[in-house]
Amino acid sequence: MTDSTLPDNNIHNQFDNKAKAWSARFNEPVSDLVKRYTASVNFDKRLAKFDIQGSLAHAEMLTHVGVISQEDLQQIQTGMATIIQEIEASTFEWSLDLEDVHLNIEKRLVELIGDAGKRLHTGRSRNDQVATDMRLWLREEIDTAIKLVKELRRALAKVALENHDVILPGFTHLQVAQPVTFGHHLLAYAEMFGRDAERLEDCRRRVNRSPLGAAALAGTSYPIDRERTANSLDFEAVCHNSLDAVSDRDFAIEFCAVSSMIMMHISRLSEELIIWMSPRFGFIQLADRFCTGSSIMPQKKNPDVPELARGKTGRVYGHLTALLTLMKAQPLAYNKDNQEDKEGLFDTADTLRDTLTIFVDMVGGITVKADNMRAAALQGFSTATDLADYLVKKGLPFRDAHEVVALAVRQCEDLGCDLADLDLAQLKDFDPRIEEDVFDVLTLEGSVNARSHIGGTAPARVKAEAERILSE
Amino acid sequence: MTDSTLPDNNIHNQFDNKAKAWSARFNEPVSDLVKRYTASVNFDKRLAKFDIQGSLAHAEMLTHVGVISQEDLQQIQTGMATIIQEIEASTFEWSLDLEDVHLNIEKRLVELIGDAGKRLHTGRSRNDQVATDMRLWLREEIDTAIKLVKELRRALAKVALENHDVILPGFTHLQVAQPVTFGHHLLAYAEMFGRDAERLEDCRRRVNRSPLGAAALAGTSYPIDRERTANSLDFEAVCHNSLDAVSDRDFAIEFCAVSSMIMMHISRLSEELIIWMSPRFGFIQLADRFCTGSSIMPQKKNPDVPELARGKTGRVYGHLTALLTLMKAQPLAYNKDNQEDKEGLFDTADTLRDTLTIFVDMVGGITVKADNMRAAALQGFSTATDLADYLVKKGLPFRDAHEVVALAVRQCEDLGCDLADLDLAQLKDFDPRIEEDVFDVLTLEGSVNARSHIGGTAPARVKAEAERILSE
Amino acid sequence: MTDSTLPDNNIHNQFDNKAKAWSARFNEPVSDLVKRYTASVNFDKRLAKFDIQGSLAHAEMLTHVGVISQEDLQQIQTGMATIIQEIEASTFEWSLDLEDVHLNIEKRLVELIGDAGKRLHTGRSRNDQVATDMRLWLREEIDTAIKLVKELRRALAKVALENHDVILPGFTHLQVAQPVTFGHHLLAYAEMFGRDAERLEDCRRRVNRSPLGAAALAGTSYPIDRERTANSLDFEAVCHNSLDAVSDRDFAIEFCAVSSMIMMHISRLSEELIIWMSPRFGFIQLADRFCTGSSIMPQKKNPDVPELARGKTGRVYGHLTALLTLMKAQPLAYNKDNQEDKEGLFDTADTLRDTLTIFVDMVGGITVKADNMRAAALQGFSTATDLADYLVKKGLPFRDAHEVVALAVRQCEDLGCDLADLDLAQLKDFDPRIEEDVFDVLTLEGSVNARSHIGGTAPARVKAEAERILSE
Amino acid sequence: MTDSTLPDNNIHNQFDNKAKAWSARFNEPVSDLVKRYTASVNFDKRLAKFDIQGSLAHAEMLTHVGVISQEDLQQIQTGMATIIQEIEASTFEWSLDLEDVHLNIEKRLVELIGDAGKRLHTGRSRNDQVATDMRLWLREEIDTAIKLVKELRRALAKVALENHDVILPGFTHLQVAQPVTFGHHLLAYAEMFGRDAERLEDCRRRVNRSPLGAAALAGTSYPIDRERTANSLDFEAVCHNSLDAVSDRDFAIEFCAVSSMIMMHISRLSEELIIWMSPRFGFIQLADRFCTGSSIMPQKKNPDVPELARGKTGRVYGHLTALLTLMKAQPLAYNKDNQEDKEGLFDTADTLRDTLTIFVDMVGGITVKADNMRAAALQGFSTATDLADYLVKKGLPFRDAHEVVALAVRQCEDLGCDLADLDLAQLKDFDPRIEEDVFDVLTLEGSVNARSHIGGTAPARVKAEAERILSE
Repeated sequence: MTDSTLPDNNIHNQFDNKAKAWSARFNEPVSDLVKRYTASVNFDKRLAKFDIQGSLAHAEMLTHVGVISQEDLQQIQTGMATIIQEIEASTFEWSLDLEDVHLNIEKRLVELIGDAGKRLHTGRSRNDQVATDMRLWLREEIDTAIKLVKELRRALAKVALENHDVILPGFTHLQVAQPVTFGHHLLAYAEMFGRDAERLEDCRRRVNRSPLGAAALAGTSYPIDRERTANSLDFEAVCHNSLDAVSDRDFAIEFCAVSSMIMMHISRLSEELIIWMSPRFGFIQLADRFCTGSSIMPQKKNPDVPELARGKTGRVYGHLTALLTLMKAQPLAYNKDNQEDKEGLFDTADTLRDTLTIFVDMVGGITVKADNMRAAALQGFSTATDLADYLVKKGLPFRDAHEVVALAVRQCEDLGCDLADLDLAQLKDFDPRIEEDVFDVLTLEGSVNARSHIGGTAPARVKAEAERILSE
Repeated sequence: MTDSTLPDNNIHNQFDNKAKAWSARFNEPVSDLVKRYTASVNFDKRLAKFDIQGSLAHAEMLTHVGVISQEDLQQIQTGMATIIQEIEASTFEWSLDLEDVHLNIEKRLVELIGDAGKRLHTGRSRNDQVATDMRLWLREEIDTAIKLVKELRRALAKVALENHDVILPGFTHLQVAQPVTFGHHLLAYAEMFGRDAERLEDCRRRVNRSPLGAAALAGTSYPIDRERTANSLDFEAVCHNSLDAVSDRDFAIEFCAVSSMIMMHISRLSEELIIWMSPRFGFIQLADRFCTGSSIMPQKKNPDVPELARGKTGRVYGHLTALLTLMKAQPLAYNKDNQEDKEGLFDTADTLRDTLTIFVDMVGGITVKADNMRAAALQGFSTATDLADYLVKKGLPFRDAHEVVALAVRQCEDLGCDLADLDLAQLKDFDPRIEEDVFDVLTLEGSVNARSHIGGTAPARVKAEAERILSE
Repeated sequence: MTDSTLPDNNIHNQFDNKAKAWSARFNEPVSDLVKRYTASVNFDKRLAKFDIQGSLAHAEMLTHVGVISQEDLQQIQTGMATIIQEIEASTFEWSLDLEDVHLNIEKRLVELIGDAGKRLHTGRSRNDQVATDMRLWLREEIDTAIKLVKELRRALAKVALENHDVILPGFTHLQVAQPVTFGHHLLAYAEMFGRDAERLEDCRRRVNRSPLGAAALAGTSYPIDRERTANSLDFEAVCHNSLDAVSDRDFAIEFCAVSSMIMMHISRLSEELIIWMSPRFGFIQLADRFCTGSSIMPQKKNPDVPELARGKTGRVYGHLTALLTLMKAQPLAYNKDNQEDKEGLFDTADTLRDTLTIFVDMVGGITVKADNMRAAALQGFSTATDLADYLVKKGLPFRDAHEVVALAVRQCEDLGCDLADLDLAQLKDFDPRIEEDVFDVLTLEGSVNARSHIGGTAPARVKAEAERILSE
Repeated sequence: MTDSTLPDNNIHNQFDNKAKAWSARFNEPVSDLVKRYTASVNFDKRLAKFDIQGSLAHAEMLTHVGVISQEDLQQIQTGMATIIQEIEASTFEWSLDLEDVHLNIEKRLVELIGDAGKRLHTGRSRNDQVATDMRLWLREEIDTAIKLVKELRRALAKVALENHDVILPGFTHLQVAQPVTFGHHLLAYAEMFGRDAERLEDCRRRVNRSPLGAAALAGTSYPIDRERTANSLDFEAVCHNSLDAVSDRDFAIEFCAVSSMIMMHISRLSEELIIWMSPRFGFIQLADRFCTGSSIMPQKKNPDVPELARGKTGRVYGHLTALLTLMKAQPLAYNKDNQEDKEGLFDTADTLRDTLTIFVDMVGGITVKADNMRAAALQGFSTATDLADYLVKKGLPFRDAHEVVALAVRQCEDLGCDLADLDLAQLKDFDPRIEEDVFDVLTLEGSVNARSHIGGTAPARVKAEAERILSE
């Protein structure tokens, strides 16, 4: 169908005068500030690899359906191979005049292979092209994130297994509540990150659909085969509406929402690591390589990494807000607003990757100060609930048992002692049903061991849970 | 195990002095402002139905494992039946002194049935109780939302089917791009809401897990059977870690994130309905029942419903921000902060339900002004791309064809005419390969019919897609 | 100009058929769901007092410029007095059919006084009316907030004065940094709330401008006197553009932004109160009336109020997000979206008022545990910087002194002691310039007293600062 | 006080082993990933100019109070001059090992001038240093923003003046409401940006206070003179509490909040420019240099700049969310989280500067299509309110007049004509009071001229307003 003998050289090519005007329809070029304001090449060049993947699949399909020749295809493949080398060798010259990654690569291709390069853009538009690039890029980032979230889950399970019987006070309201094992505490986070991995997988399914062939907004008049390109790019499905395919960015928002939940979980873990490492708690020590000192206080060793991660939560929440705002009330189909979908998304993926990577290492390097944990658990009446449960088992309705123990605690506070420090006679004053066996339930071990049902803090249960996760 | 002959009446019950002090451990009651500030009963009473469901399942399990007697269970069931009646009849007295829905119901139960009521709270805590209530409530809301999103998808498909061959200008950048069919345009939204339904279903799986039995934070020393309560409450699984079960709210955040995406899509559709109904466009008319007038401008008929829906997008985004902020850096396990998870979540579900319900009806009531749409499509060179494609098929590389047509458009603008108004001689001036058959591709029908691949705007394709959706 | 003898009774009045159709131009009434969805009367009725204030000022001005008669004015004043009484006595019947506070009041006025009531809306619209109401309401809320923020600032200064020489460890990174006085720590918050008060005052100036007379969007053809209504409503200025006056809501956003900063500061203070009250710290005790217990753990006394306040930060951030989203990309002039400006704004003002009121009381009720604070300050090498400064004063460049002390700290850690526990010989090993006077700088008092410049933690300075604030 | 003859060379300097460990207290260096994760030098080096300004002011003060010698000061000044040259010449070597801009510059200073450089950090910390740098930098950015916002306001007033009598339909709900002049419409934005300038000025006062001397958190034991450094750096005041000075970032949040409101206003203006430039409206044309074309649609001329600006609103909202999240619930004093305050703030300032600069130019280049505007104003019953007002002046109460006109509009719709197309007899059918003079009020000019009060749309008023703004 193509005829390379035609005198194309005499025709103005769209790229030639790019620095002068957008196309023959324009009377003046964009100003330098406008060029800088509207160009995306400075940040979207990281899509180059995926842009070329998409172009090669598109060219192969165009050949298959007879729109371009086999010879054109071979030239395109050769040209793209050269471009990949140039990019990897950093010799590729990115030009702001050419706006974005797509035009930069296409212009270079035309320089390298002539008319065959000019035929590549047949049957597509930058609108479906950038949507394809974004999905290919994000799919890879999601795969990395899934891997890292699962590694973090295992790192937590590993430390949990080692500490399945180390007891610390479980807090609610940062007040001592009941004794728990440190392994149990860490497995709470393993559960959270487990759900986060599920969310990433769900998100991946929606990312992994092909917009290629939607062209500018309405599809194309060429006899393209969208399932062929989808297959060759490993997409699971084809987007079923061209207007939707080029204009919606809900897949990017979903990724930012999932990332926000992951960072929320990271911020909770960070908060606890920081509190536990404070000398008032002294429950753990982080390895020195995750800490820094002070420019004027020589004694300082600061938990910089969890603090910074806690802070970076804001950044990811912010990107989610930005994308939701971006898409609010945008009419169909593509609008230039959508160029703003990239930087925040890129930064979200980078922040997630770096944070997860560093946490996998950091969690593995926690030093547990079991003595401090135990000492803390022995204060604050952590077994008061066990005493109430004991009374219930002796026949007191729960609500009454609760009140009996509250009175006992109040007396202990007045005396400056703990429940286990009262003797049997004193305890009997509160309820005559209390007997010698009460002291079994007032120990930390008695308390945790008793909670052996699914999800409970009993060491045996924690050990089993950790092993289950590690065997996944 | 229980012994109701014991003189429990002589023991201070926890509820009795609630107005005076929290428990025997407290020296003073909360002030009235504090009471109002910290109480949740004004808004969490909507959880009553689910709270009772959860309590009945818990009581049945306690009986099964032998912690309470069959007689106790029967009394609890009877008491709860009474309470349900009282709530439905609005005779139930909600008390701010009793803080929340849980204590209000439990207190009433104890009034009605005595000691059996006091035994209900054995082996659980308000922490796992409220987490259970929230999940049961949200599961029901999600089911409603899924149903409504699918109905909206079908309503769109129905109108799309009726208008599968009505042509309007497809816009990018709100500039005329290419002709599309109105049916195709509506199906873009059907796709969006289709993905939203998927997201709701994914979210439901994570909501539908049972925290019951996690107790305050560590599980309980009673021999509870968590899988039994999970089963009787139709949960798919059991939360595997008690600390996580009572303290995390990612399931609520996920629902707000999905709702934000749905409202984002609603805001886009609303924006278009408003623009289309503006007299400058005049593409559609909404039924009067979705419009209101002005207090001083007698001629006004305003698209209030889509405008308000567009505005309500902010509300839902705001609730997502609120929940993400709420959970940021919260240490384990339960903190009072979490009481703030409810109002925003309730309002999100209400807003979603009302908005979707009203849109199902409104979409069905759109009057299409096909003549105005067609007239608009005939302006703005909407078939310029078809001309470029024509030239490519005649042998010109795409990039050169693009430039040729840009020149032709520029000349038309100078002449004040459209491309189809040029005669063959004038067209040939731009490229000698142009022949008589060019006028076929310059028609609106020619343009849309040519885009017949999957996802394209061709009427036949749109008809098939709409039918596919309607047969789901 | 008016003629009350005309047979107005025969003409359809706009209100009469409200339940049937919006105006004569409409063919069908809004459906019940639409009515509920679009009506605002359920929440905007709290504007009633201000709506009436605005109407009375408007009527007085209309009389002054001769648009309505003195007799009409008197009837309107009488009617409005009745309505105020009805509202206060809760006998006023609010109707959803009448949409909002404005139509409800106007309809009742017409019922009460007939044609004079129908003349009230001359020369205005609901668009400028609601903008006026909102500004009058918000001005009052801001005045309350300014008063409360200043009270909180004074409450902090009062406790600071009482504790100007109580020493606790100052933390950075939650690691012990340098000793500070508790008074100094509290005054940090007094500074924050001082800036917040400034912001509220700046915001008030922009709120306090009159939109009345902007009418629907373009002003009115009646000879109104906008400065007269502005004056009688105590506005400082008149909005200079009618389109801006009815459509922008930046004043509401600014209030939410300032409120977000206040809640951010509240969240920081709350976090510290919670940490300080944790038994691991034990620095303070909150009065029982700000705490609650647990439904199953009898020993618990939880800092509910600061936790809930910390959580409510999310709510206020969320309302800010909602309003920013609401106004994004709204074309001029008034759109129905703007009805959504109210609920979030109302809730922001309520949350702010309640939170500040409760904090004024709570801060005053803090019990300081000075011994625990001092004990904590004696651990963690809090005077290491003082040692480094000592060495600098002896001639060592700061960067070298920092390194010397770091080595000393490391040795202390190995020995399990503090810097002050080393004897002179051991200290001299690190640097021969160290002499007997070093022990003065290693005491807590020596450290804090040395920081006596403006903004420093020295007790004398803190006392002076607290007194300065209390004398404001 | 200093003695440069001492054998400092033998002492380990804090910088020497930076690549190996943070200080003598650390056992291992941070890993490469941690280094990259925690270092800020890649983005905070833009603070270099302000860091050096602050250091020079600090050094001069230290000399004045006798802490360092005059000779040291001269060396520091010489060294800093060299560093400035190196940075400007891009020969300065930034090192990731040295974390941030502060240590990079200080290390280089010590290389250049030896011990005098090591003395510079006496009496300060990086905590007050970075807070000082940020405030100096932000003050300059605010001054730029104020200048640009005012220029934009003037640019709008200039175009308003030129178009003070060009009539277009004023819209509410994007439905035709009443005629307004284009100048009036633009002046609405001039008002918004006027308030934004006020907000920037208010924010500047709070930014312009000196934290220098707060040191790490508690002040310093050196006899520093904080007012002297504040004066030499042109700060208006000194921060009165050291803990607050190093830890709060509300000044940065306030700037982001003000910027969000500015971008909100930009987004509204952008939305209107886009709608007005749509061929369905055709009210304006933007200069080609603010537009781009399409890669496949040769006819396209897209309003890229306003679209992108509308999109960038999301980015700025996102940064505000990020900072609010960052500061939520942070305990005092400095935490590493705060390093995250920079990138979003930098990007906010950059976005604001670029957007405002480009809008000043773009607004000046709007081509007004007055004929299209007028034609649109003649449709849609834009003078219906004037007819109602006419009837009121003839004696009908407003509410009845409203209903009469609604009936007339309905009849016109049925007839397919406008109100002015009805003859007197037809009009009299609606109300006998209508006479020949009614046709004066039904013209566009009659309508706008009648709205001549302050803030009204009358051409004379608009002209006066525009001139007032231009003479500011």
